[in-house]
Amino acid sequence: MATATEADAMRRAIALAARGLGSTSPNPVVGCVVLDPQGRPLGEGWHRRAGGPHAEVEALRAAAGAGHDVRGGTAVVTLEPCNHTGRTGPCAQALIDAGIARVVYAVADPNPVATGGAATLAAAGVDTEGGLLADEAAAGNAAWLTSVLHHRPFVAWKYAATLDGRSAAADGTSRWITSAESRADVHRLRAEADAVVVGSGTLHADDPHLAVRGRPDATQPLRVVVDTRAGVKPGARVLDEAARTLVAVAEDADTRHLAGLGTVEVVRLPRAAGGPGLDVTTLLAALHERGVCSVLLEGGPTLAGSFLAAGAVDRVVGYLAPALLGAGPTALGDAGIGTIAQALRLDVTDVARLGPDLRITATPIAPATVPATEES
Amino acid sequence: MATATEADAMRRAIALAARGLGSTSPNPVVGCVVLDPQGRPLGEGWHRRAGGPHAEVEALRAAAGAGHDVRGGTAVVTLEPCNHTGRTGPCAQALIDAGIARVVYAVADPNPVATGGAATLAAAGVDTEGGLLADEAAAGNAAWLTSVLHHRPFVAWKYAATLDGRSAAADGTSRWITSAESRADVHRLRAEADAVVVGSGTLHADDPHLAVRGRPDATQPLRVVVDTRAGVKPGARVLDEAARTLVAVAEDADTRHLAGLGTVEVVRLPRAAGGPGLDVTTLLAALHERGVCSVLLEGGPTLAGSFLAAGAVDRVVGYLAPALLGAGPTALGDAGIGTIAQALRLDVTDVARLGPDLRITATPIAPATVPATEES
Ligand SMILES: NC(=O)c1ccc[n+]([C@@H]2O[C@H](COP(=O)([O-])OP(=O)(O)OC[C@H]3O[C@@H](n4cnc5c(N)ncnc54)[C@H](OP(=O)(O)O)[C@@H]3O)[C@@H](O)[C@H]2O)c1
Ligand SMILES: NC(=O)c1ccc[n+]([C@@H]2O[C@H](COP(=O)([O-])OP(=O)(O)OC[C@H]3O[C@@H](n4cnc5c(N)ncnc54)[C@H](OP(=O)(O)O)[C@@H]3O)[C@@H](O)[C@H]2O)c1
Repeated sequence: MATATEADAMRRAIALAARGLGSTSPNPVVGCVVLDPQGRPLGEGWHRRAGGPHAEVEALRAAAGAGHDVRGGTAVVTLEPCNHTGRTGPCAQALIDAGIARVVYAVADPNPVATGGAATLAAAGVDTEGGLLADEAAAGNAAWLTSVLHHRPFVAWKYAATLDGRSAAADGTSRWITSAESRADVHRLRAEADAVVVGSGTLHADDPHLAVRGRPDATQPLRVVVDTRAGVKPGARVLDEAARTLVAVAEDADTRHLAGLGTVEVVRLPRAAGGPGLDVTTLLAALHERGVCSVLLEGGPTLAGSFLAAGAVDRVVGYLAPALLGAGPTALGDAGIGTIAQALRLDVTDVARLGPDLRITATPIAPATVPATEES
Repeated sequence: MATATEADAMRRAIALAARGLGSTSPNPVVGCVVLDPQGRPLGEGWHRRAGGPHAEVEALRAAAGAGHDVRGGTAVVTLEPCNHTGRTGPCAQALIDAGIARVVYAVADPNPVATGGAATLAAAGVDTEGGLLADEAAAGNAAWLTSVLHHRPFVAWKYAATLDGRSAAADGTSRWITSAESRADVHRLRAEADAVVVGSGTLHADDPHLAVRGRPDATQPLRVVVDTRAGVKPGARVLDEAARTLVAVAEDADTRHLAGLGTVEVVRLPRAAGGPGLDVTTLLAALHERGVCSVLLEGGPTLAGSFLAAGAVDRVVGYLAPALLGAGPTALGDAGIGTIAQALRLDVTDVARLGPDLRITATPIAPATVPATEES
């Protein structure tokens, strides 16, 4: 049985893990706290970016750097320590070598390549316990778990609207519906995502940049435009060198104007069977292949409708401005819902005030049903 | 200076006053707590309904009924005690006669007929102090204050919608977008209002009843249908005998089918100058003349748009269901807003969870600008 001190340490480790969001894919986010036998913290760490040291190694180093002896201590870690030698050595072995006597982890590693760490630890005589605060830790790793288990990225759809559901006024103006606080929060969501996706309608209407601003340490997400006919102009802001960009086009699109742009990749996808544009499931598979674990879908309404119709939205983040318009485009377009019984029902998981606005975070009640491209 | 005990008593008096909402018009809601010289409560009361005893008299009676001597005590009351002899005697005199030594009130009475109570008390040697928690008490009396000061009712617009602002699905179905908890809360709003208003579109689409259900003690609000051509059918539920009904029609409407319905009154109003239907300002004046201090506007989207365009909405209460539709009628129709700079901005004053839903209460930032029919 884990102690209350270990549970506190796990909460701390979960918070540390979240600092890695947006920088660790295709790896998970992981946090670790090392305690002495009396439960006092000796060191902590988190996995900062793919290719960098794992959380356990960071925490052991921090303890050593502070002159602490970790022998006989406990490592509290959000994910089962890995067992494989990737770009860094296996963490299970590092913990054994350091003389750690007990390992408490939250979520078992579902990754067939990395799993087995707990068994290795136990075989070396380390007291090993899994499952502490597993739900909280899994929520923090939702993107990576979706990627490993369903072979597609986790998709959060973000929209901004008035209380009456308008995302622009009748004349198309929309700057600014929401407050500076909300817009800064969207940059946080971008920084935590591996890719930011918009449709060609938004591209042409807004010429968005889609890079993270105001967060110097952030890893820029992959910018993705879903642009069937490759209508994006070479001078579009999304094609600049601030970040990499993927332009998804139809198989027959003419993309000669995009050749020679160093940070731009073109991917050709099949058209959607029954709706507008390109097939959403294949798009997500293409992102998965590129190591994208989490997608921030920034709209617009038409593309969001297609994602929802495909069951490919895992989280909805609505920024509601306390304003009314009574006319203008709506935040969400056709999602194939014809009658009230088919409404996509959500669970509200969080309501926050951001300046004058409300941010509502919700999860579809029926689990996302987009077919996986490979079954696990 | 009022004491902390008196402030606590005032908070209690404000809560008591609210129990009268919906039953006291054209009178204010008022609450009163009588304290002994040491600040211990001796009795409390509130104005229950127009024609019934005032709060001060209720509180004095409650104290006497409990065998307490109030002489030398303090009366804490949400509104300046009245000075006039209406259906009941003046409260100022009742307090003097009871031997009350001190009166603390929140809001001065702006009603020219009733004002002067504080002066009467002071002239009789009662220590009298006004302004304690005046803003809170005024908020609780917003309807009555609007009525007295602006000669029109206070208007709360209630709507129910999905997170994407739809009030029905594409096929018109809307039962039930919101939860049972939200629908019960709407009955509370109805019970607290003097009149419930809908447009002819809602009348024909939903055949609503508009009476309060599930609250046996509630005073039924006046049901108002805004029905230019008097299209309401004699069998419509809104015309039954559960409550009185006012049918607002154009001057030239044929209303012969409404003759002889005992609980139904027809009022003829001018048509709106630049929009659909009847003139909103004249409608509100007609309600004011009938002693209506507070209106719950239950839609639909077209009528709500006209009220907002007329600056005639004082409070917005949105019941947001955590659901998405992507199609279907929107919660709010044309309100004359063409561009984002004209958006009607609100201040969110409350966010509550009702079952799965969110209830958002907000106040227009620009004060309602409907012209008063008489200036005070
Ligand atoms: N308030 C907000 O949160 C927000 C966010 C974003 C955008 N907006 C506003 O939304 C407006 C643009 O709306 P929109 O609906 O035209 O833009 P959109 O959803 O960004 O783009 C729709 C277009 O994307 C392409 N597309 C490719 N694959 C698709 C698929 N599977 N499903 C749907 N579309 C697909 C289609 O055009 P092709 O087939 O020609 O490529 C389609 O017409 C702009 O005014 C923008 O300001 C608001
Ligand atoms: N979700 C919600 O909260 C909610 C609430 C209510 C209704 N609804 C839905 O809304 C739908 C009805 O929508 P609607 O917009 O047609 O209904 P509405 O707003 O109730 O009625 C509009 C009609 O009212 C009459 N009217 C009279 N004076 C008016 C004025 N000054 N401004 C505007 N209209 C005036 C007009 O018809 P005449 O000139 O012919 O009289 C007008 O067409 C129904 O499906 C109902 O279920 C939803």
